Amino acid sequence: MTDLTKKGNGLKSPVKNSSKHKPRSNNRLPARRKLSASPRQEETKNKKIPPIGPDTIRIIPLGGVEEVGKNMLAIEYGDDIIVVDAGLQFPDEDSPGIDFIIPDTGYLKDNKDKIRALVLTHGHLDHIGGIPYVMEKIGNPIIYTSLLTAVMVKKRQEEFPHLPKLNIQVVDKNDVIKAGKLKIKFFAPTHTIPDSLGVIIETPYGNVLVTGDIKIENKKGVPEKFEIETYKKIAQEKTLALIADSTNVEKVGFSIPEKEVQENVKEILASVPGRVIVSTFASLFERIIFVIQAAEELGKKVVVEGRSMKTNVEIAKELGILKTKKDTIISSDRMDNYPDNKLVILATGAQGDAYAALMRISSGEHRTVKIRKKDTVLLSSSVVPGNEKSVQKLKDNLSRQGAKIVHYGIAEVHSSGHSYQGEVEWVHKMIKPKFFIPVHGHHYMLRVHADVAMGIGMPEKNIVVPDNGSIIEITDKGKKISRLKDSAGGRIVMVDGLGTGNVKEVVIRDRQMLAQDGMFVLIAIIDMKTGRVRKSPDIISRGFVYLKESQDLLHHVRQLIKKTIEEAAGKMHPINFDYVKNTVREEVGKYLFQKTHKRPIILPVLIEV
Amino acid sequence: MTDLTKKGNGLKSPVKNSSKHKPRSNNRLPARRKLSASPRQEETKNKKIPPIGPDTIRIIPLGGVEEVGKNMLAIEYGDDIIVVDAGLQFPDEDSPGIDFIIPDTGYLKDNKDKIRALVLTHGHLDHIGGIPYVMEKIGNPIIYTSLLTAVMVKKRQEEFPHLPKLNIQVVDKNDVIKAGKLKIKFFAPTHTIPDSLGVIIETPYGNVLVTGDIKIENKKGVPEKFEIETYKKIAQEKTLALIADSTNVEKVGFSIPEKEVQENVKEILASVPGRVIVSTFASLFERIIFVIQAAEELGKKVVVEGRSMKTNVEIAKELGILKTKKDTIISSDRMDNYPDNKLVILATGAQGDAYAALMRISSGEHRTVKIRKKDTVLLSSSVVPGNEKSVQKLKDNLSRQGAKIVHYGIAEVHSSGHSYQGEVEWVHKMIKPKFFIPVHGHHYMLRVHADVAMGIGMPEKNIVVPDNGSIIEITDKGKKISRLKDSAGGRIVMVDGLGTGNVKEVVIRDRQMLAQDGMFVLIAIIDMKTGRVRKSPDIISRGFVYLKESQDLLHHVRQLIKKTIEEAAGKMHPINFDYVKNTVREEVGKYLFQKTHKRPIILPVLIEV
Repeated sequence: MTDLTKKGNGLKSPVKNSSKHKPRSNNRLPARRKLSASPRQEETKNKKIPPIGPDTIRIIPLGGVEEVGKNMLAIEYGDDIIVVDAGLQFPDEDSPGIDFIIPDTGYLKDNKDKIRALVLTHGHLDHIGGIPYVMEKIGNPIIYTSLLTAVMVKKRQEEFPHLPKLNIQVVDKNDVIKAGKLKIKFFAPTHTIPDSLGVIIETPYGNVLVTGDIKIENKKGVPEKFEIETYKKIAQEKTLALIADSTNVEKVGFSIPEKEVQENVKEILASVPGRVIVSTFASLFERIIFVIQAAEELGKKVVVEGRSMKTNVEIAKELGILKTKKDTIISSDRMDNYPDNKLVILATGAQGDAYAALMRISSGEHRTVKIRKKDTVLLSSSVVPGNEKSVQKLKDNLSRQGAKIVHYGIAEVHSSGHSYQGEVEWVHKMIKPKFFIPVHGHHYMLRVHADVAMGIGMPEKNIVVPDNGSIIEITDKGKKISRLKDSAGGRIVMVDGLGTGNVKEVVIRDRQMLAQDGMFVLIAIIDMKTGRVRKSPDIISRGFVYLKESQDLLHHVRQLIKKTIEEAAGKMHPINFDYVKNTVREEVGKYLFQKTHKRPIILPVLIEV
Repeated sequence: MTDLTKKGNGLKSPVKNSSKHKPRSNNRLPARRKLSASPRQEETKNKKIPPIGPDTIRIIPLGGVEEVGKNMLAIEYGDDIIVVDAGLQFPDEDSPGIDFIIPDTGYLKDNKDKIRALVLTHGHLDHIGGIPYVMEKIGNPIIYTSLLTAVMVKKRQEEFPHLPKLNIQVVDKNDVIKAGKLKIKFFAPTHTIPDSLGVIIETPYGNVLVTGDIKIENKKGVPEKFEIETYKKIAQEKTLALIADSTNVEKVGFSIPEKEVQENVKEILASVPGRVIVSTFASLFERIIFVIQAAEELGKKVVVEGRSMKTNVEIAKELGILKTKKDTIISSDRMDNYPDNKLVILATGAQGDAYAALMRISSGEHRTVKIRKKDTVLLSSSVVPGNEKSVQKLKDNLSRQGAKIVHYGIAEVHSSGHSYQGEVEWVHKMIKPKFFIPVHGHHYMLRVHADVAMGIGMPEKNIVVPDNGSIIEITDKGKKISRLKDSAGGRIVMVDGLGTGNVKEVVIRDRQMLAQDGMFVLIAIIDMKTGRVRKSPDIISRGFVYLKESQDLLHHVRQLIKKTIEEAAGKMHPINFDYVKNTVREEVGKYLFQKTHKRPIILPVLIEV
């Protein structure tokens, strides 16, 4: 009974434009935020993309090149497609209520008979998190990955019991996989999670190399010997195209080596007067393992708090990558048996997530851990863009209770898992690829990465800076790289509750409008014979103003509704309900705006009796 | 007909608790965000605060000590109150739809007869933006401030024509004001806006000194001579209490001097191949003036874009703090008359604000300025926490069009207006206050500031780290500082459209819920005689799922509504409408959650005929 698809009119300044605004344009975009240019929520369907030519290699980033997150890439040659990674992205305030954003796999769906493998580089959610949502669409191909990644994928899949079982083949960095006519090889780059794999796909014209997430362990900017060996080995074969991580390319020099961070963390563990609460990303296996082992060496006990932290510590123990004495990890109930300076609490929540362990500790809501005067809180992580305010709250709450806080802003207690510009440059120089496609990052980051490559001599024509869905082709027997005009998609596919991909722009926009000014439903019963409104109209409103203290406003609105409807309806036989509805929406909208400077979504319900 | 004030039940995990949740608790908190502990939206009223004692100095921060923003401070002695600043704060995603947050002036309202003056330190919104909202409440006291600040306050007041005229007295840094029995003196600290004033209030026991926003101009950590002189002069009198800016105290060392930034900016202006678009905060008068003058020296023309930038350039010209040749500033229509390398565009929007000039330029929507290949965009500003994502979008859009971007992450083209730790320490050492109250910042920042003071020898008992509304008293003839148990307020007072201070928690919470899962209104007409539902129930929904593609769901919900109502109503005479409503809300909520994993706010409307 109401047009559910109507869009806001995008009025910018409600105050200034109030006299000009059109009757039906009561719905407006929120004043302070605009939807990014043409958000699209559906997967691409039935596009007319020309079939791949002979001797052509197609490289299609399906996600991860207009954002940090939802990494996914397809490499196609002849009748075979290899897919690398299937990540997810966490939504921001532009998409309220959305659970995740996943890659647009429309192209793969249309070509699923050609998919020979999904290869996973490592176990972080921006590389594996999309699996439960995309596997069926892309025809449930075999998954090749390392042991730890395989375990993490399986753990996650347990949360989706209705989905078919995954066919995961665990590989070693020295394995060679035949996938159709293509060969897949691996290498072992450094990242913040063990068992990471770089992926090398052999083609007749050279290798296509996908780095995954990498950093280069170094001492003051000099790469470690094992890194040099890894990349020397890669350089023994011709790399036709390098597809490489751009996340940190804006940062000059070399990243802080993880070893240095670990030394600093250990020093803090050794020197604090009381307990230490170490908080970091649960996905930073290397650091978590180190903290537990360092605590053990210092004769301290470790309490693990937070679901994902507990899970990952369990996984690390099961796989033997974490080895501890029987009694190093204790349950929080046993904390009282040890003096404070013998206790390390390893907790999730360094990003200030509302329900994570550290946030609950900071707000005094945690069941067993309460902040004490001599506690030191070590935030061994960076602040993910967008989380600045929640991390600030976290620090405020902790310091209010007397905890001392050490964070990466004041000490080197965190290092990123992604290469800085110096490392990126070094990798390019080692591998000497013919062509280059920067991935993993926002567009500007990819541009900077391209600049870095050009800075060390790569011709501009050998580089393609892609968008999500770009179809990049290497043709002329490996001589030429270009980008098709057609796109394989690159739409924003959202997971919203149980629905995937069916979230329309209008739904998101309505949520934004509701968040700004709320809604206002008015219900009037009209006597069809007389055109009069029976009784006083009813009003339901949420998120607009506090109605209990607005009785006067409500009283006048009721009168206005009655009067407007009766005037509008009185003139016609039969009553044009759409006309009456629009008139009352317009009048009530004007009145409410005049009185409150707010523009709730107004929904008139007219009942005929 | 619906309880409009009902609150959500605060269920944290909707999935886990679905079977336990009560019929009426369909409204839940958004899953990913929780309202900060007890947000309060109303001004404090009628609190029983003990009257001030004889020989007691009260210092009450009314805002700005649990956030960066809405700075306001009251200093009370005997029968006199001096208020310093009346700022506003921009809201974040925790308070959707809110325009501003302002200080809780309840205490001042109750004591307005004692207020002798509102003194303004400088013209930034976090120090003057609250004026239109609080002046009447605090009894329209005389405003004392410098010329530029006075002009900016008047400009802003023009947007509120219904408010009474302000009584502004322009003062010079050497003036002495008698305000009741108190004397107000000033000094001229360095900040990013000219005409800034530090405020010194003389009391019988020594001066109470309010720094306002300050930095110390320096060369490699050595303060400039004029700074040394300013603070030496202050030190000639006894400073009883220092109330000082904590914004940047976490940053070690000295901030980059503005002069150095200006040299770098000028070098960029001189060396670029084409146009330069310089974007910075419109409030950074010093930098804006410098850019225009540097452009003139380099023989370039300046186009000013963006409303606030244009306004502030006009103000600077009017006051004579910006002097240019007649033809240096040109309108954008005349750009084509000059070669690209003779053009500088000065624009708002470095924070990625959707409607600012630079954002419109970046998205191709600007009327006259389109990005060209050789353009250089100079983002001469930092990224305000919370704006990271919009600035990323800005950079992506600009680089997509081929602009070269220079930002403070890669070059020293911005410097903060707030002292770093080294400067803060230097100020403490120069002034040697007896007591210290850190202000301007989140709680953790104030704690760090307190640590800095203790680090150079101040006893902990001489420091009070306040909260908004803390009543700090200096008693025993200036010998003792303490904090009362009573609070003067510190509530979060929101400006929401025309309403100030009447925004209830439930309204904000409803907006958050609406933003997550939308709403679902169902309308059923019940025949009172038979208890049957007439016709098919109507449904209005926004922000939930895309109904056009959910016809099947709607069909089943309609059946469920009819069945549930008839079963519930069929059992009773007369019909208990509340019971029926709750039952149908519960059943529909369960069904929708099962089918979509979303929990819209469900609003049943039952019409009796």
